Amino acid sequence: MVRTILGVVMLSAILMSTGEAQVAESLNLMPLPAKVQLGNGRLPIDPSFSVTIAGHKEPRLDGVVLLFLGQLRRQTGMPPIDMKVTDSPSATLVIQCAAGTRNVQELGEDESYRLEVGNSGARLSAPTTLGVMRGLQTFLQLVQMTGQGFAAPAVTIEDSPRFPWRGLMIDVGRHFIPLEVLKRNLDGMAVVKLNVFHWHLSENQGFRVESKKFPKLHEMGSDGLYYTQDEVRDLIAYAHGRGIRVVPEFDMPGHSTAWFAGYPELASAPGPYEIERKWGVFDPAMDPTREETYKFLDKFIGEMAGLFPDQFFHIGGDEVNGKQWDANPKIQAFMHTHGMKDNNDLQAYFNQRVQKIVSKHGKTMLGWDEILRPDLPSSIVIQSWRGPDSLSKAAKLGYRGLLSSGFYVDLMWSAERHYLAEPMSGAAANLSPEERQRILGGEACMWSEYVSPENIDSRIWPRTAAIAERLWSPQDLRDVNSMYRRLPEVSQRLEWLGLTHNSSYAVMLRRIAGTDDISALKVLADVIEPVKDYTREETAPAPATSASPLNRLVDAARPESAAARQFTASVDALLATGPRPETEAPLRAWLGRWRDNEVALEPLFAKSLLLNEVAPLSRNLSALGAAGLAALDYLDRGEHAPGAWAAQQLAVVEQAKKPQAQLLLMVVPAVEKLIRAGAGQTVSSPSASSLPPN
Amino acid sequence: MVRTILGVVMLSAILMSTGEAQVAESLNLMPLPAKVQLGNGRLPIDPSFSVTIAGHKEPRLDGVVLLFLGQLRRQTGMPPIDMKVTDSPSATLVIQCAAGTRNVQELGEDESYRLEVGNSGARLSAPTTLGVMRGLQTFLQLVQMTGQGFAAPAVTIEDSPRFPWRGLMIDVGRHFIPLEVLKRNLDGMAVVKLNVFHWHLSENQGFRVESKKFPKLHEMGSDGLYYTQDEVRDLIAYAHGRGIRVVPEFDMPGHSTAWFAGYPELASAPGPYEIERKWGVFDPAMDPTREETYKFLDKFIGEMAGLFPDQFFHIGGDEVNGKQWDANPKIQAFMHTHGMKDNNDLQAYFNQRVQKIVSKHGKTMLGWDEILRPDLPSSIVIQSWRGPDSLSKAAKLGYRGLLSSGFYVDLMWSAERHYLAEPMSGAAANLSPEERQRILGGEACMWSEYVSPENIDSRIWPRTAAIAERLWSPQDLRDVNSMYRRLPEVSQRLEWLGLTHNSSYAVMLRRIAGTDDISALKVLADVIEPVKDYTREETAPAPATSASPLNRLVDAARPESAAARQFTASVDALLATGPRPETEAPLRAWLGRWRDNEVALEPLFAKSLLLNEVAPLSRNLSALGAAGLAALDYLDRGEHAPGAWAAQQLAVVEQAKKPQAQLLLMVVPAVEKLIRAGAGQTVSSPSASSLPPN
Repeated sequence: MVRTILGVVMLSAILMSTGEAQVAESLNLMPLPAKVQLGNGRLPIDPSFSVTIAGHKEPRLDGVVLLFLGQLRRQTGMPPIDMKVTDSPSATLVIQCAAGTRNVQELGEDESYRLEVGNSGARLSAPTTLGVMRGLQTFLQLVQMTGQGFAAPAVTIEDSPRFPWRGLMIDVGRHFIPLEVLKRNLDGMAVVKLNVFHWHLSENQGFRVESKKFPKLHEMGSDGLYYTQDEVRDLIAYAHGRGIRVVPEFDMPGHSTAWFAGYPELASAPGPYEIERKWGVFDPAMDPTREETYKFLDKFIGEMAGLFPDQFFHIGGDEVNGKQWDANPKIQAFMHTHGMKDNNDLQAYFNQRVQKIVSKHGKTMLGWDEILRPDLPSSIVIQSWRGPDSLSKAAKLGYRGLLSSGFYVDLMWSAERHYLAEPMSGAAANLSPEERQRILGGEACMWSEYVSPENIDSRIWPRTAAIAERLWSPQDLRDVNSMYRRLPEVSQRLEWLGLTHNSSYAVMLRRIAGTDDISALKVLADVIEPVKDYTREETAPAPATSASPLNRLVDAARPESAAARQFTASVDALLATGPRPETEAPLRAWLGRWRDNEVALEPLFAKSLLLNEVAPLSRNLSALGAAGLAALDYLDRGEHAPGAWAAQQLAVVEQAKKPQAQLLLMVVPAVEKLIRAGAGQTVSSPSASSLPPN
Repeated sequence: MVRTILGVVMLSAILMSTGEAQVAESLNLMPLPAKVQLGNGRLPIDPSFSVTIAGHKEPRLDGVVLLFLGQLRRQTGMPPIDMKVTDSPSATLVIQCAAGTRNVQELGEDESYRLEVGNSGARLSAPTTLGVMRGLQTFLQLVQMTGQGFAAPAVTIEDSPRFPWRGLMIDVGRHFIPLEVLKRNLDGMAVVKLNVFHWHLSENQGFRVESKKFPKLHEMGSDGLYYTQDEVRDLIAYAHGRGIRVVPEFDMPGHSTAWFAGYPELASAPGPYEIERKWGVFDPAMDPTREETYKFLDKFIGEMAGLFPDQFFHIGGDEVNGKQWDANPKIQAFMHTHGMKDNNDLQAYFNQRVQKIVSKHGKTMLGWDEILRPDLPSSIVIQSWRGPDSLSKAAKLGYRGLLSSGFYVDLMWSAERHYLAEPMSGAAANLSPEERQRILGGEACMWSEYVSPENIDSRIWPRTAAIAERLWSPQDLRDVNSMYRRLPEVSQRLEWLGLTHNSSYAVMLRRIAGTDDISALKVLADVIEPVKDYTREETAPAPATSASPLNRLVDAARPESAAARQFTASVDALLATGPRPETEAPLRAWLGRWRDNEVALEPLFAKSLLLNEVAPLSRNLSALGAAGLAALDYLDRGEHAPGAWAAQQLAVVEQAKKPQAQLLLMVVPAVEKLIRAGAGQTVSSPSASSLPPN
């Protein structure tokens, strides 16, 4: 099944020429379809819009169409009493579906579709309901405001995904994320054609599912913050209605302190245990040498295998530091008896035992890189946080794999960096066709040390839309500028659907400012980003815990500053051509605003502790604004600034490069270029440094 | 019960001196409490915050405290695993509640509370759980960001409401409003201590409740847009948890076309009937002469009386035009036989019959002004859309009443105008103490011709907070400037709780602009307001219906422009003192932005039909900006502008006063003043015209 689809996709990728890619790009679609042919004219979308379902009918398809109409209404602001489903063959949109889908969505089910939009009607045909879902999302993205009202351009699209597994993982263990927040993120996933919600349900800091067999798991391991089994079923149904599989993860044998709060006998050292509050890798791990451990897991996995219908069951398996094993004489004796030379051997033994249990309950096991050992059956799937080389190694050994390295959205990387992460790169580029098919796709990962219901959307969106395009669209689409042009459009669509990545920003800034007037704070907040990778821990004034408020500017700041990106591009443009009024004026406006902003913001510092910590950033931005303006003056006059001036300004730049309050001023490199140019120094080429170094 | 509470409130109002009112005002509370005494210092609010419940305990109180903690967490951005309920007597906040509340909240239940906040703890005491709810909301409003972190100031508050009935009516008949939207509005009501949700459930345009006895009511009368009985119960429980009664209204005998779609035999003319799509007053009315009508209503009211536990049952009773009655010979004969001289008599007969049915099912009848006739028992309550004089008349006749005139939030009035509407004004000011007690309070009314789930919050909030203060706080609080200073604070709080009055604005502007960059559109949108009163109908290019999209700028524009109010105040300040740099600079910035905005916005007109219609407004704003700047130049030079210039500019002003796309430019009067001042003409005093004429 998987093989066939991948074959089709690769063919499509070849069929799509560069010219077609440009055509497709003009349509603001994300992810871009495999094949797009623009026609002439447009289909007006007004309240008389109607849909008819021809061909195969099933209740699920009706639900899909109602959902579609709801989204079309929300997008256009049209009322719910028109825009309906009819039996008329002259409906605006005719859906022709060849067959239904399975009750439990499977890996590799056909998601392809063909969409033809003409001046008086549209036709969507697909082999399955899943394809209809994908095609309807494309149709929604085609609908745009025009001078004549809402309309979809005449177009013919043939589309199918490059990879069959396109996921988003959300870690609800470290911070609990309420059901309605997950639901709105599922809505977002459907928009960008992601099809797997990987639900990371247990962590040292929390066990989040009701277990009827082992109730102390959620009762003592969750602070009362868990999903009931009814809620789990509700979420799975919600996802199913959007063409999304739900894969549960219960991390073992490490990352499991929260299990031990209720069941200390599972651990490799005596309890009692409490829910972990700190972040990091901790000692507690399950005892792989006791048969009781497997009896427990057999019952537990049996219960969860019944609750979660998906074929795949994720056992985590990452980051066991082995300290409890080293310190336990019984475990050491067991290892000696069984000829295990190190903890890796012991964990491999554990994985083998767990794999048999998972398999006994009818599921296919999935785990992180660490589980990869040739003694496991080739049915298991490896999820790689290490990279394509690791995936490639697995594929050569006959294992299927998923890429998550490069897609960790908690690391605060730019959309560009995620977009260019490629499952088929590195060693994977040289795999045989058969081996390539073992690379199933990838997953964006939202680890949740620093997310709350309030800011999680802004960590996931819109950057995950770029990851979704990487996983759906042809491999040769790598035009970063095109991606950035289309990203705001999909971001706006996600906001329409109820995601809060934009609206929460203002709400959080108002709290930080301690006032409703956030104009000055926004000038600063718009050009900063949280520190990257894992430096938030390293630069923390005090270690954060799961009880730390996430209400600081670093929690509100966007992972990627669009303003800084635009400013940087404008500086590059100016330096490439020399100062011209039309390129210089906006730069001066920006720099002047920054220079003057400190005066506006400073009175607020004493009134808000949350704002006070960013005072140094504000002063740095002000200094950068003044320095940039002075540099432009030199450039305008065609003079070289004196060396002493440049040295002084570059000292300001060095100061401004340092993280403050775990935040980075993203306009520093561009201002540095202006200063160097003003001083007649060589400036690196735009192509090498047009973007902030993240 | 009611009498006692009112007595206490009036005493409190007398106790609160002007000085105390100023103290209270500094606290940003809304509604302001009856009595406030500021202490020294503050109580820090951090993740170690805890609450203990002393005295009376009941599950409902636990729920109230959990809800409170949830709001405190959201407001401060603190995590859910700390800030908890403990048994410790040294908890940060000790709640002492004397007694519980009834399962069904009653009119006039004691809502008073006493809140003492010190440097190391706080104590909230109240006779009932309801008082605890009100006091906790006050506590939440006390918590502010400070230079030392979140804290509540040391203070002692004694508080109780002026009126026992403080409501918000939402019309879900003309436009269906989904349950979750109602819930977030209930959250908002709780913030400002409103205690009645009046649910206007049936209209010509829709019947919105599932009826098991008469299923064709919702099946044929709602376009599928109705609440199931389970959903109704869910909403009532949600309201009860927030101290809010739910009063259902089923409008009869008029406003009932949607009933007739399923049951045409109820009407006074033969069917068939369809759900009405247009707005206005229509002919169809129930037949008051047929016994079958009362049999139907007996069964129906019996069913609904079981579903809605509140003591009060609203039968509407407004706006019967009588045409169907005039045209029906049987009805005419009936009137003749029974000696009825006009349709008012016939409707009075109907009301008497219905009142007996309502009473038989254990409920007290409530209706609009029109039902007032001395032949109804004095237990009924009159809701007045006519005004305090009408209420006064009812009170003198022995009837209790509610004011809604002055509180119609669909009319797009300013918060000031709503704030100053006073139930005890006009003839009501001269009532005897006993008669005064019959005036129970009032209700903000959200009629829904032009609201959708997307913009309804912005029509209700924040202005309804000002109405809530009118109904809760002492009568002599009428300081409009104080109200406007506190309104943004409560508005921000409402946004934290999930209301979308601010966030939807940007979402809608982006749709209208057809692009993510709404900076230029926002400059315009921030200084406009929808036309007032019922002029939207009068100025409509084509009659609107319930199927008209609500996606235009008039649907997004705020009912009250804060920017226009500020600009107007700044102009008044400048004209009072003459031009000074510090007052003139912000005015010039504003005017310059408006003058230049047309250039930025104009390229978008051709790209968006929704934007195109506001092109004349944009041109007018641009012209006003230029005229205002020129006027300032004359003022700066101490010259009088030539008469010809002034005449020309005043022609621009006249042009700009005309509604465009059903929108008003709210800065026109202030710019006119600048122009007249620049031309040396007499300008009316700020006090008389500092606010736009709405």
